Amino acid sequence: MPSISEKGKMMPASPIRKLVPFAEEAKRKGRKVYHLNIGQPDIPTPEPALKAIREMDLEVVAYSHSAGNESYRRKLAAYYTSIGIPVDHHQLLITTGGSEAILFAMMTCFNPGEEVITPEPFYANYNGFAAAAGVKINPITSVIENGFALPPVSEIEKKIGPSTKGIIICNPNNPTGYLYSKEELYQLRDIVNKYDLYLFSDEVYREFCYDGKSHFSAMQLEGIEENVIMLDSVSKRYSSCGSRIGALVTRNSEVINTALKFAQARLSPPSFGQLAAEASLDTPPEYFEKVYDEYIHRRDFLVEALNKMPGVDCPVPGGAFYAIARLPVDDSDAFSQWLLSDFEYKNATVMLAPASGFYATPGLGKQEVRIAYVLKIDDLREAMKCLEVALKEYPGRTV
Amino acid sequence: MPSISEKGKMMPASPIRKLVPFAEEAKRKGRKVYHLNIGQPDIPTPEPALKAIREMDLEVVAYSHSAGNESYRRKLAAYYTSIGIPVDHHQLLITTGGSEAILFAMMTCFNPGEEVITPEPFYANYNGFAAAAGVKINPITSVIENGFALPPVSEIEKKIGPSTKGIIICNPNNPTGYLYSKEELYQLRDIVNKYDLYLFSDEVYREFCYDGKSHFSAMQLEGIEENVIMLDSVSKRYSSCGSRIGALVTRNSEVINTALKFAQARLSPPSFGQLAAEASLDTPPEYFEKVYDEYIHRRDFLVEALNKMPGVDCPVPGGAFYAIARLPVDDSDAFSQWLLSDFEYKNATVMLAPASGFYATPGLGKQEVRIAYVLKIDDLREAMKCLEVALKEYPGRTV
Repeated sequence: MPSISEKGKMMPASPIRKLVPFAEEAKRKGRKVYHLNIGQPDIPTPEPALKAIREMDLEVVAYSHSAGNESYRRKLAAYYTSIGIPVDHHQLLITTGGSEAILFAMMTCFNPGEEVITPEPFYANYNGFAAAAGVKINPITSVIENGFALPPVSEIEKKIGPSTKGIIICNPNNPTGYLYSKEELYQLRDIVNKYDLYLFSDEVYREFCYDGKSHFSAMQLEGIEENVIMLDSVSKRYSSCGSRIGALVTRNSEVINTALKFAQARLSPPSFGQLAAEASLDTPPEYFEKVYDEYIHRRDFLVEALNKMPGVDCPVPGGAFYAIARLPVDDSDAFSQWLLSDFEYKNATVMLAPASGFYATPGLGKQEVRIAYVLKIDDLREAMKCLEVALKEYPGRTV
Repeated sequence: MPSISEKGKMMPASPIRKLVPFAEEAKRKGRKVYHLNIGQPDIPTPEPALKAIREMDLEVVAYSHSAGNESYRRKLAAYYTSIGIPVDHHQLLITTGGSEAILFAMMTCFNPGEEVITPEPFYANYNGFAAAAGVKINPITSVIENGFALPPVSEIEKKIGPSTKGIIICNPNNPTGYLYSKEELYQLRDIVNKYDLYLFSDEVYREFCYDGKSHFSAMQLEGIEENVIMLDSVSKRYSSCGSRIGALVTRNSEVINTALKFAQARLSPPSFGQLAAEASLDTPPEYFEKVYDEYIHRRDFLVEALNKMPGVDCPVPGGAFYAIARLPVDDSDAFSQWLLSDFEYKNATVMLAPASGFYATPGLGKQEVRIAYVLKIDDLREAMKCLEVALKEYPGRTV
């Protein structure tokens, strides 16, 4: 039997999905599982998107343009322009989810063996795309004590070596919920400029910024226009994860032209998803106000509930819909699996994402979990009750 | 400005899509362009698929399982079993088009620098996925004189070296339309067995085999069950290219488990497309009979029309919906571009795919084009008239 590739062997399983078989087993036993492991909101997809699908009149479901339908690209460019990111439709490619935008950006910009710096904990699926592109992720550790702020510039500069080709940030951050300030982005700009790096800015949670703070996009940084690649998605903005529609946005035309070659190889992004995504841009503002209020409500409830539990520490996230909590357990991987395999409270349990998988440095995140507050308050309440009981019962508790 | 990756620079533009800007320019001039360049059928998508989309009742368009919806996987496995390819739903992953199945297979099985042998001319987009995976395509030339039959085993064996890790075939073949015989597949099996290689079998045109010949799948080869990976798609079978739904099928569980990690990184295949694809499996047999008759009709018309033109040679393809024709021109790239930029007949022209891009050996295919017979007879007739006139007027004609 021929062997599996080295990158396939080395690639870590997704911390979000690796416990899925245990969750399936728990469900087979008849248990209710509260899914706090994955950023799959229970928020309804906007009606204009659903309507566009129900009323679609395609007779032949054909390939679209490899860069995405021009009508959608124009409308999306107008949307970005309206929120202070002026681009035109030649400066973006529609991708199959934000995932493909990350993959294309890595394939286009980095050679195998080159390095990309990213603050850890980071979105674990960067590992998969880095493995695919043969790129090494060089982590710079952010810490729970200051709510996972950007590490000091001096620390970032220490990481830069001859193989360093770029920096990836996710803002607001998944998994920490941290919202980078304008000042932090200016600091990144200076590093990017000084060392001529790419700056990948994953902004799929852009519209989820709380506490009166506004989002500052890497696309708004002057002087590094050719270095910045924005990665985006409709998954979270319109609760439309299954549509698999994202975008790669940059003012660097060489990057667009090269990424388009990878896009042409896979022919086109999904046609139905593009219909939904284009129609989503007509979602009335009331939808977002309601969603926004709901997430703040959930966040506040979650963070308060967590911090009330003995030994639990959870900083208040400034954006997105994730929080990292430190739990009084020996090993959050073991605890998360135990929750699914050995625990139940009123015939229910909780699925968490162990944070170790969001760190590249071995040993970090061992007491932390990522919690996605994507469930309605009543469900969150039940989930928190479960978690509280579980923390008392867990044999590996440390408090 | 940071540099573009080497693989991005080296990656050839798609021969199917690189002339798109010239076609767009021709259309801006008000010209009708007959698209024979791309395998985008004008055949209607089956009604059950369209109905499933129009009647979809999702309220939250959520991620699906990374391997695809279980209901679809089970039904698809039953379909394969019914056509003589017994597999169960754990032996396949639903992918975003056949494209992603190729990418996952390459990432899973091959290390950068390893080689894969494939008969040329070959589906040009293999180049893109090979570039992405850092894999080298080692071509073995098939020739128009025998209708692009599999080259002799002795020739294939000469290509095998220490870096050779697999063979890719497309059966029936895109771009040649050649249908491999059972005997040819047994020959491949012996090579695969002898050198312990992977055999990737791209069978997306499986249902399009003509002249009373039936399809023999690589999955039916005994003794190399762990070596074979079948790549499939709903794009052609159900004229559903825009759904972006394919499959990676193998009895090698290590390959499935590793490919699943790449699948988890990109979260899930498109939800709407999966609804359409699952419903497509209920398409009544009459649909396929009609489509089948239509393609045979088109093929016969096309091949006859081409061979009547002075200096044109077009072997009769045994499957799929492509033909490679040799034209009396100096350079089919220049000719194809000239057709779009400088030629018109009754305010119309033809878009072809120059065959050079389907060969890896430099200089081959210079007089050949790939023609997709995906248009209705009336359009094909007009397109052939255009081509006939163009071949007379083209300044670089050789006859």
